[in-house]
Amino acid sequence: GIGADNDLYINQAIVFIEDAIQYRSINHRVDSKSLWLYRWYYSRTCQWILSLTITIILALAFIEKPSSLTVTSDVRYRLPAWNPPCGLTESIELLCFLVFVVDVSVKSYLVGWEEFWKNKWLMAYILTLIVSLTDWIVSLSFFCAENVRIRRILRPFFLLQNSSMMKKTLKSINSTLPEMASVVLLLAVHLSLFTMFAMLLFARTKDGQQDKEWVVYFRNLPDSLTSLLVLLTTANNPDVMIPAYSKNRAYSMFFILFTVLGNLFLMNLLTAIIYNQFRGYLLKSVQSSLFRRRLGIRAAFEVLSSLKEAPANAQQSYVSVGALQQVLQKVAMDSRCKQAIMRSLKTCSCDQLSAAQFQKLFEELDKDAVKQHPPSPEYQSRFMQKMQFAFGHPYFGYLGNVVALANIVSICVVLVLDADKQPSERDDFFLGAINCFFILYYLLEMVLKILAMGLKRYLSYPSNRFDGLLTVILMVLEIATFAVYGFPHPGWRPEFMGLLSLWDMVRLVNMLIVFRFLRIIPNMKFMALVVTTLLDLVKNLRAFAGILVVVFYAFAITGIMLFEGAVVPMGNTSVGPMNSWSIGRTTLMTLLSKCLSRKADFVTLFGHFETEIIYCLLYLLSINLICRWAKIYFVAWWLISSVIWVNLFVALLLENFIHKWDRRCHRESLSDIEYQRTVELMFRDVLEEPTEEELMEKLHQHPHLQLCR
Amino acid sequence: GIGADNDLYINQAIVFIEDAIQYRSINHRVDSKSLWLYRWYYSRTCQWILSLTITIILALAFIEKPSSLTVTSDVRYRLPAWNPPCGLTESIELLCFLVFVVDVSVKSYLVGWEEFWKNKWLMAYILTLIVSLTDWIVSLSFFCAENVRIRRILRPFFLLQNSSMMKKTLKSINSTLPEMASVVLLLAVHLSLFTMFAMLLFARTKDGQQDKEWVVYFRNLPDSLTSLLVLLTTANNPDVMIPAYSKNRAYSMFFILFTVLGNLFLMNLLTAIIYNQFRGYLLKSVQSSLFRRRLGIRAAFEVLSSLKEAPANAQQSYVSVGALQQVLQKVAMDSRCKQAIMRSLKTCSCDQLSAAQFQKLFEELDKDAVKQHPPSPEYQSRFMQKMQFAFGHPYFGYLGNVVALANIVSICVVLVLDADKQPSERDDFFLGAINCFFILYYLLEMVLKILAMGLKRYLSYPSNRFDGLLTVILMVLEIATFAVYGFPHPGWRPEFMGLLSLWDMVRLVNMLIVFRFLRIIPNMKFMALVVTTLLDLVKNLRAFAGILVVVFYAFAITGIMLFEGAVVPMGNTSVGPMNSWSIGRTTLMTLLSKCLSRKADFVTLFGHFETEIIYCLLYLLSINLICRWAKIYFVAWWLISSVIWVNLFVALLLENFIHKWDRRCHRESLSDIEYQRTVELMFRDVLEEPTEEELMEKLHQHPHLQLCR
Repeated sequence: GIGADNDLYINQAIVFIEDAIQYRSINHRVDSKSLWLYRWYYSRTCQWILSLTITIILALAFIEKPSSLTVTSDVRYRLPAWNPPCGLTESIELLCFLVFVVDVSVKSYLVGWEEFWKNKWLMAYILTLIVSLTDWIVSLSFFCAENVRIRRILRPFFLLQNSSMMKKTLKSINSTLPEMASVVLLLAVHLSLFTMFAMLLFARTKDGQQDKEWVVYFRNLPDSLTSLLVLLTTANNPDVMIPAYSKNRAYSMFFILFTVLGNLFLMNLLTAIIYNQFRGYLLKSVQSSLFRRRLGIRAAFEVLSSLKEAPANAQQSYVSVGALQQVLQKVAMDSRCKQAIMRSLKTCSCDQLSAAQFQKLFEELDKDAVKQHPPSPEYQSRFMQKMQFAFGHPYFGYLGNVVALANIVSICVVLVLDADKQPSERDDFFLGAINCFFILYYLLEMVLKILAMGLKRYLSYPSNRFDGLLTVILMVLEIATFAVYGFPHPGWRPEFMGLLSLWDMVRLVNMLIVFRFLRIIPNMKFMALVVTTLLDLVKNLRAFAGILVVVFYAFAITGIMLFEGAVVPMGNTSVGPMNSWSIGRTTLMTLLSKCLSRKADFVTLFGHFETEIIYCLLYLLSINLICRWAKIYFVAWWLISSVIWVNLFVALLLENFIHKWDRRCHRESLSDIEYQRTVELMFRDVLEEPTEEELMEKLHQHPHLQLCR
Repeated sequence: GIGADNDLYINQAIVFIEDAIQYRSINHRVDSKSLWLYRWYYSRTCQWILSLTITIILALAFIEKPSSLTVTSDVRYRLPAWNPPCGLTESIELLCFLVFVVDVSVKSYLVGWEEFWKNKWLMAYILTLIVSLTDWIVSLSFFCAENVRIRRILRPFFLLQNSSMMKKTLKSINSTLPEMASVVLLLAVHLSLFTMFAMLLFARTKDGQQDKEWVVYFRNLPDSLTSLLVLLTTANNPDVMIPAYSKNRAYSMFFILFTVLGNLFLMNLLTAIIYNQFRGYLLKSVQSSLFRRRLGIRAAFEVLSSLKEAPANAQQSYVSVGALQQVLQKVAMDSRCKQAIMRSLKTCSCDQLSAAQFQKLFEELDKDAVKQHPPSPEYQSRFMQKMQFAFGHPYFGYLGNVVALANIVSICVVLVLDADKQPSERDDFFLGAINCFFILYYLLEMVLKILAMGLKRYLSYPSNRFDGLLTVILMVLEIATFAVYGFPHPGWRPEFMGLLSLWDMVRLVNMLIVFRFLRIIPNMKFMALVVTTLLDLVKNLRAFAGILVVVFYAFAITGIMLFEGAVVPMGNTSVGPMNSWSIGRTTLMTLLSKCLSRKADFVTLFGHFETEIIYCLLYLLSINLICRWAKIYFVAWWLISSVIWVNLFVALLLENFIHKWDRRCHRESLSDIEYQRTVELMFRDVLEEPTEEELMEKLHQHPHLQLCR
């Protein structure tokens, strides 16, 4: 009936608008039941369950059999890690797989049969699930005794396929690959030509004393290649040329030429290429997001205009304001946007909306959220008004900064004075008394500011929230100290009591005070710019970080398979920085800690670039513990994690910073207002609006939606 | 009289046009005698003498007293360097100073009194000369026994002031300094906050076993600061965290946070800032060059239009074609440009030129030089025509590349086979025979190509010149080998004869063959692009390199003064890579070799970045040989040579590459024609032409030229 039809149209419009908000594709089934399923699938609960499942399946690696989740990384002190019984992790895995099976079925059903065959990601998803389940069955039938577990390498795929931003980024990276490959090829040519040169230049001589260079670095082709490859990473930079250089200074020209060409030119060329290529592709992907949003809105308009209640207008389609209000009430969207749209709908006097008006209404979605701080309280008494003026003034904040700086300086002085004292000689009185005074000042400052600005306004500034939180924590710590150890007095050196020693308490307080000093950031213009750029970068980097997790995970698991048992124990004789090398068994997450860098965790690997990897590479190559395959593994690792990823990061940083910097000049006056920037907003000035024809053509290609006209 | 006036005008026009060609300022005296002096000063001979003088005074450092121009850098084998007698270098210096005095007087006279006071460079030049001469007198009165020689630090100034491009670049760098300083300040804040954190975190504990981290890296404030500064350069990256990490894995978070914030964010931010700032300033400086050129041309037009022979036209000024031809004949300029201008002057039917026409004529100067290759010879006989077709075809070139590759592969195979053989076991027959064959082929290829293309056309391609030169050298070497050692036969192992042993000859031939393989570059599109970018970069980098030389020189001389005698000998016991550390006296150019990096020469320092400096820093800091001032010296050195210069280089590379890359797409079809690009041409698309008003306003501000109207 007409009522049912109208309900369907309303529901379709709701879903299309939600699609537009989330930048989702609208190419899904649009019948009533599918729409219900679609909204259920994209509901918060469902998506949260899916994310949780992905997190769980990825985290499994930390407790699975070759695991090393221990406090210390030093094998001499380390307790054996807990090994879960066979079947525990496997049953958790099965549960995860079941969730994924549901996920892929719903997704496949919703896109429809025809679209399914075009969607490579979905097919890969199904394939991955089939392989994983098969591997799981094999694993169980061996009672968890087999070592090669393909499904572990495939796990990061589940993370990848769930994020559209990551898929987009991967596409961008993929399109940059040919150019990158060219530079890498160039590097390879550079390396091989110089290797031949080196072998000819540093050949074996009849005089055994003269050919140190040959003995150590250029004995044969693989050695020479390795020496120069490591030189390319600058890890053995002075050492490799010393023997030849001692003989004749002119030999250094060879190494300098190699380093300048390879490191300075070719490596930076890689940066330039990645920056150049990536710039365009990021813009393109943002452009396609915009297209999806406009398409969703337009689709909602088209279905609403087919509502039977509206008078059939042959020339142009219209949407009644009432229908839109009905839709808006049911749409799940940011309440600020919803209110803004409702408001402009009310101010609009017409009761019919054309396509352009409809589109314009939803432009609110693209706008920056401008944060309004609540007003200060208005006091009646003159005294309070004066107080408010004095303590609400920026100068009071500056005074606070000066006091914080004084505190830092005093801590620094005490640290320098106490540096060489024995712990037993240390007198905590001075620092205790001083910190007590400063913390009282901080408390006073907070109270006065709240008085002047009102609690709501005070809390609406992030810097105040940061400040206040730390002040409260400091106060609590100080009170706890006094409660346990009494008030400070000269010769205040109490024994250990309670959870933490007095010394530890004081240290903790000091660390918090140092941390609190960061409140000066918003007061320094350039610092504030840098920090906001960094924060933006972190936002935009999420997709990259995700891909990095995927790569790291796959590398770690591959490494375990390749090197399980390959590193033999060398006893506990080595000391100092080498002690984490002397290891017994190659265990899951410590694989990379032992074979690749000297630290252990998967988690800690994120901070580790070039140097460690090369240190390790050098070490491993020098002790000849590993075979040629391992060499290839490490070179691949170096290329991906150190060269390519760092360059991608630099490209993104350049992009972000230059945009920000250019905009800073325009918006100097608006600097008080905090903008919430995303990658979409960053490019807004250069984005092109899709034309009506493009939108309509795309709408007519929709596989499930039949438009009346 | 009128004739004398006309002559003056003609001469003025000549000088103005020459100014325009060389992008010089036209603000100099314009009377007859000054013009003669001006042309003499800017004549090739004079400028060549000046350059030579600058080279000589800079090169003096290599032979002056604390010098180390020896073959080996190993102090155990090194002969004492030659010490010139007192008065030798000093008298050369005096000669140079006299040339500079003449230079500065001429320059000062030519710009005129008023301009002189505005020109800071000239004043600094005079000041430098006065200080240098005073220092020179002091030095002689001490009979060269004094150590502090200020004039040596000032020497690079002479290089700096002589190059307008370097002055411009310095100005650009100067304008970037505030931004850079902000980031460096940020780095300092980052460093000091983390240092305080570290000192609180890794404090001394009562249990002596537990505080390894404190003992080694964070004993007191200077130690902690140094540890973290070195961590910022990634030199001690894994080592510094190992003791703490062994205790508890969570400590690694501190180091990771520090590295990610400092290295990944702040350091790359520096790149971004330098790129962003520098981009604009480079464009600006090119824009001002263009303005100078247009101004020079306009000035020539104005003086020529005041010639009495021309009919006084009240409305608009004109220049007669005859006068321009007269001027052009006397102007020193590129003959290609001159011919092109003459040609277009003839095709222009008018005999009066307006300002716009005049300006347009000289646009030839801005155009790329399009290289035309001479035509191939035309043969009469069918056979020769077929030959020409076959050997002039690109496929013949490809065949040559394939043969060169085969040669490389064969050398590589022999190298791998011979890698572990004793020199006495080595049989040179195989390589000798093979190389003989290949060199014959190369010779044949060259002859056939010359036959097909004609000698002139053959030589007009740089790749052919490269190819031919190497082939001729190879042939000469081969003939020499055969002449000395006879033809190769199995068991060909002759004893040492003549200048080089057979083995050295063969090695030399092989190296040249590897080098010759570079001829494939123009055949690979991407490689060709990269190589042309690199060549452009080298062109544009000259100014940077000059500034780098200035900085290096000043640093080296300062270092000598600071550390003369500060490094004490440690005996000859150390071996291996440390042997160049064990030194007796600190001598001039080896100062940096001993104190800063383990290599010796000023010359070799250009290739040395980050790693060596930090290696050295670490080493010096660890052995506590140097005082706090030295620490500051090294940190300054690291900041300038490694951080700032490398970032400037990256900025320039990004700029160059992105421009080139964008243009590549436009000019795909024209790739056969070789363009000669300079930094001016790179930006042509974005440059703005100066307006007539701007030019005339500037002309009327000329201090010496009185225009009639």
